[in-house]
Amino acid sequence: MKKAVILLSGGLDSATALAIARSEGFACHCLSLDYGQRHSSELEAAQRVAAALGASEHRTIKLELTAFGGSALTDREIAVPTQPSEGIPVTYVPARNTIMLSLALAWAEVLGSRDIFIGANAVDYSGYPDCRPEYLEAFEKMANLATKSAVEGRAIHIRAPLVALSKAEIIRRGTALGVDYSLTVSCYQADENGVACGRCDSCRLRHQGFVSAEISDPTRYLHPDLSE
Amino acid sequence: MKKAVILLSGGLDSATALAIARSEGFACHCLSLDYGQRHSSELEAAQRVAAALGASEHRTIKLELTAFGGSALTDREIAVPTQPSEGIPVTYVPARNTIMLSLALAWAEVLGSRDIFIGANAVDYSGYPDCRPEYLEAFEKMANLATKSAVEGRAIHIRAPLVALSKAEIIRRGTALGVDYSLTVSCYQADENGVACGRCDSCRLRHQGFVSAEISDPTRYLHPDLSE
Repeated sequence: MKKAVILLSGGLDSATALAIARSEGFACHCLSLDYGQRHSSELEAAQRVAAALGASEHRTIKLELTAFGGSALTDREIAVPTQPSEGIPVTYVPARNTIMLSLALAWAEVLGSRDIFIGANAVDYSGYPDCRPEYLEAFEKMANLATKSAVEGRAIHIRAPLVALSKAEIIRRGTALGVDYSLTVSCYQADENGVACGRCDSCRLRHQGFVSAEISDPTRYLHPDLSE
Repeated sequence: MKKAVILLSGGLDSATALAIARSEGFACHCLSLDYGQRHSSELEAAQRVAAALGASEHRTIKLELTAFGGSALTDREIAVPTQPSEGIPVTYVPARNTIMLSLALAWAEVLGSRDIFIGANAVDYSGYPDCRPEYLEAFEKMANLATKSAVEGRAIHIRAPLVALSKAEIIRRGTALGVDYSLTVSCYQADENGVACGRCDSCRLRHQGFVSAEISDPTRYLHPDLSE
């Protein structure tokens, strides 16, 4: 069985990416990053999602990005915005996807895996530069010069199956593949029980996705307007 | 004063890269990675080197690459070779430079720095793929698509001033800039006091560099043939 490394945050997108990798017949080695994020209930969600979707393995690696700060997700002094902003929002974590893909690359090389799945999405997204297809292509090119396996002819593929899908399309795809979205947590400031704020960018995009997909939103929101 | 992030391992090359960045007038923010390497005396060396060369700051970030293994430097079951090998040696750590440059990229973005220095060298080196100029160029391209600052027009430069120098040229350059190489540790399996084995690839390349540069080698070696 060919192996894939799946970056699993515990959110909706990466759960769907895992389901897609499983549907393609990969043995899935899931990797989560404990980087000191506000929403640590995401990490517990990642564990539940990995188990529910039949991952072969799930590892959480700790790396204190709070040492650098610079984001509402890694610096408690910066508030999570509840209104859409112009440009790249303060929830952007500097170089986060680059760091996570680099770790996935290291693990893939050790496992002998040539496929790395990431739930990056450039349609209904928050404007993060490291979710765009041109970024992902550049990472893949770099990865194929970086590693011993690539130099020896075993090319690495960065797989972003959601990159061109709308949030509604992602939810429909995942639902068809049996993803239980009630296990996932997308909110930037979910409480310890995984209850979502219903106000941040991530909650808004998620809820709007369910509405557009005409699928009932199983998320538990603190914000009464979004609860069903 | 413009800021640079310097990847500092505690070895000879990165100490020289720091000295070069200082000579160009950068305020130097040094980053070391505690990845569970065998040679933790390198990390103590990094601290001494940063202080001696007038770095503005030195941070060590912990990341257990031993969780992945796959290298003689991160897996105690794999011995450090004492004879040159064909191809890429087992001391290669999967994706190490990619991970370290990614962390440097994150910090550079938070600091508002546009220059990242790495002591990578492709002449007298161990055959690691992630030390080659084509790899470093691909990383820079990727970095300039990855970050908010790059998207906003502040390009990132990956600076590898040693990439085309021989070990002897590096040592001459550093000596001219006042680097005290007795503070540095290159050995893959130095003991806790920083005494080098004198047998591994890294020791051999280092010692040969001093011989070729006709500069006295200040390294303390366990191997009697190399001690002076």
